[in-house]
Amino acid sequence: MTIQSFYPPQRILMGPGPSDIYPQVLQALSRPTVGHLDPLFIGMMDELKQLLQYAFQTTNPFTIAVSAPGSAGMEACFVNLVEPGEKVIVCRNGVFGERMRENVVRCGGEAVLVDNAWGEPVDPQAVEAALKAHPDAKILAFVHAETSTGALSDAETLSRLAREHDCLTIVDAVTSLGGVPLKVDEWQLDAVYSGSQKCLSCVPGLSPLTFSPRAVDKIQQRKTPVQSWFLDQSLVLAYWSGEGKRSYHHTAPVNSLYALHEALVRLQQEGLENAWQRHAEMHQVLRAGLEAMGIRFVVDEKSRLPQLNAIYIPDGADDAKVRQTLLEDYNLEIGAGLGALAGKAWRIGLMGYGARRENIALCLKALEEVLK
Amino acid sequence: MTIQSFYPPQRILMGPGPSDIYPQVLQALSRPTVGHLDPLFIGMMDELKQLLQYAFQTTNPFTIAVSAPGSAGMEACFVNLVEPGEKVIVCRNGVFGERMRENVVRCGGEAVLVDNAWGEPVDPQAVEAALKAHPDAKILAFVHAETSTGALSDAETLSRLAREHDCLTIVDAVTSLGGVPLKVDEWQLDAVYSGSQKCLSCVPGLSPLTFSPRAVDKIQQRKTPVQSWFLDQSLVLAYWSGEGKRSYHHTAPVNSLYALHEALVRLQQEGLENAWQRHAEMHQVLRAGLEAMGIRFVVDEKSRLPQLNAIYIPDGADDAKVRQTLLEDYNLEIGAGLGALAGKAWRIGLMGYGARRENIALCLKALEEVLK
Repeated sequence: MTIQSFYPPQRILMGPGPSDIYPQVLQALSRPTVGHLDPLFIGMMDELKQLLQYAFQTTNPFTIAVSAPGSAGMEACFVNLVEPGEKVIVCRNGVFGERMRENVVRCGGEAVLVDNAWGEPVDPQAVEAALKAHPDAKILAFVHAETSTGALSDAETLSRLAREHDCLTIVDAVTSLGGVPLKVDEWQLDAVYSGSQKCLSCVPGLSPLTFSPRAVDKIQQRKTPVQSWFLDQSLVLAYWSGEGKRSYHHTAPVNSLYALHEALVRLQQEGLENAWQRHAEMHQVLRAGLEAMGIRFVVDEKSRLPQLNAIYIPDGADDAKVRQTLLEDYNLEIGAGLGALAGKAWRIGLMGYGARRENIALCLKALEEVLK
Repeated sequence: MTIQSFYPPQRILMGPGPSDIYPQVLQALSRPTVGHLDPLFIGMMDELKQLLQYAFQTTNPFTIAVSAPGSAGMEACFVNLVEPGEKVIVCRNGVFGERMRENVVRCGGEAVLVDNAWGEPVDPQAVEAALKAHPDAKILAFVHAETSTGALSDAETLSRLAREHDCLTIVDAVTSLGGVPLKVDEWQLDAVYSGSQKCLSCVPGLSPLTFSPRAVDKIQQRKTPVQSWFLDQSLVLAYWSGEGKRSYHHTAPVNSLYALHEALVRLQQEGLENAWQRHAEMHQVLRAGLEAMGIRFVVDEKSRLPQLNAIYIPDGADDAKVRQTLLEDYNLEIGAGLGALAGKAWRIGLMGYGARRENIALCLKALEEVLK
């Protein structure tokens, strides 16, 4: 066996993530590694916390990046906030709502499901009915931007309903952060996690996470230990906290954190509102081109995510073959359908650095050529 | 708030990890990101599995890298292999043995402790006595190379004892992999995890992991679900498996996996035995220099790790001030003592690419100047 160095091709990433990475982020990634307790690195982490607070629009002191992908960020929320026997209302309108249910069950919680069809947003009336029917529920969990369908739910309204029924909220913002308005403090969301590889255009592997003071209170009042040592946020906070001496928990993924810092510096330079606006505008350009080709969207216009465009595969097109041709002949990746939409839909991402006119032009022309 | 890009200094990393990174690994890290289901990326993962099998000296089909640091690799072993109520014999001779105990408890298992003093290896006689006293124990867990003390334990003997008493083994090889002999198949170890940032000289954030067929059998016969969704290896394997279609579990940390691949290509080029030999030789060079300065080692020669040198802080030296001066004036990081050795010892790493004569010369001269 002799294996050589791996040289990947330069793809154009228009799937559901990873998105096109900012060149500056890849440069930051390969800067010299320093120790995870180096004072200069700890200064960088303090800045990273501020940048994440800006992206999340929050002043929560507990705002960090989990040293693992978004699904570990999801699990960090559930294992810290759910105690065995507690009831959690889980909204399920795609793959990630179902994954939330799995998390509740594995924490020993009881999941009460509010189902909506794939492609639809979470229905606030159904959520309110569930909250009324289950006054002992402690938490409402929902996905803000369903990556499997491209549907945006009304996080502000769902959060208000949760508060009216004394529930905390766990919110999946993996695909929404940086792409559409997400206002953690104004909407009073409690535990919100995201991913580095979507609208932040950073490499995959980190999960931004923020807990409100209410969420931190609930963690501090736990009667049972958190079942995960790695994801026990009271231990993690002793490393991320700016107060006093940092204590070692695990070895931070130093270079990946450089990359996230750089991605957030770029978001700060563009301005969050400008980034939202750019995603909305680029979506309109893509939409006009797709509709001109007779292609239909899975999600109704009013709850459609600009950064994740789920479209029905045109009649007669061979799902796998079209995606393979786009990849091999055009170096263009678009996403397959997931779960209930597998074989029925494609997902075209316009995320972060990927939401550019040249990407859209390539995608439209390549699709036109491959589908004809 | 305006935060600028972060430019870290070029440190010489001679602490307990992260170690000095191979320049080629940093280059690989910043290559263009591709999708985590891209056929070319999946080909790279197949190679990565082969390279990990070589490093671990195993043919285990279940050989992967966990998408998170070594402490998540540890947790992956415990949550998959321990069922609630099961008894696990945990050897504790440093920080990481204690972390193993924490993991057992959080899985609902019962931990039976075999304690040895910090700086000593695990005592096989004490382990044998515990195995005899607890015939219902299912697992023996121990640390091969204790990163907190620099002590090497006899994994081969401990594994034999475990088998004689029908126990599986969980082995922490975070600091041993690539630095001292570790022979997973020959020694019949069952679940072995490591870290990317030690003797492999890759960036931190990944945990190489291998399970024997016996370990996989135990997982398949579980009566209860694995409490972690993210670390449920039956789900992870559906993504890493080469057979048939890969199914999505979580988004792989694409660029970090490029880096690990490159680090392992370099290990393969050097040859595992040559790497072990280099670590042993460089340790002798460092040792001669330290002893000439009257510095004493924490660990007896016969169980001393070449790649992690725990030394007593000389009388009269100010622990924090010396380390700070080395860092600020020489760009040299050495490690503080951890746990029971905090304030009493320093840890000098000679790991992977860091085990070079120029590093040792710098370290000895800088220590001489700062301590005088």
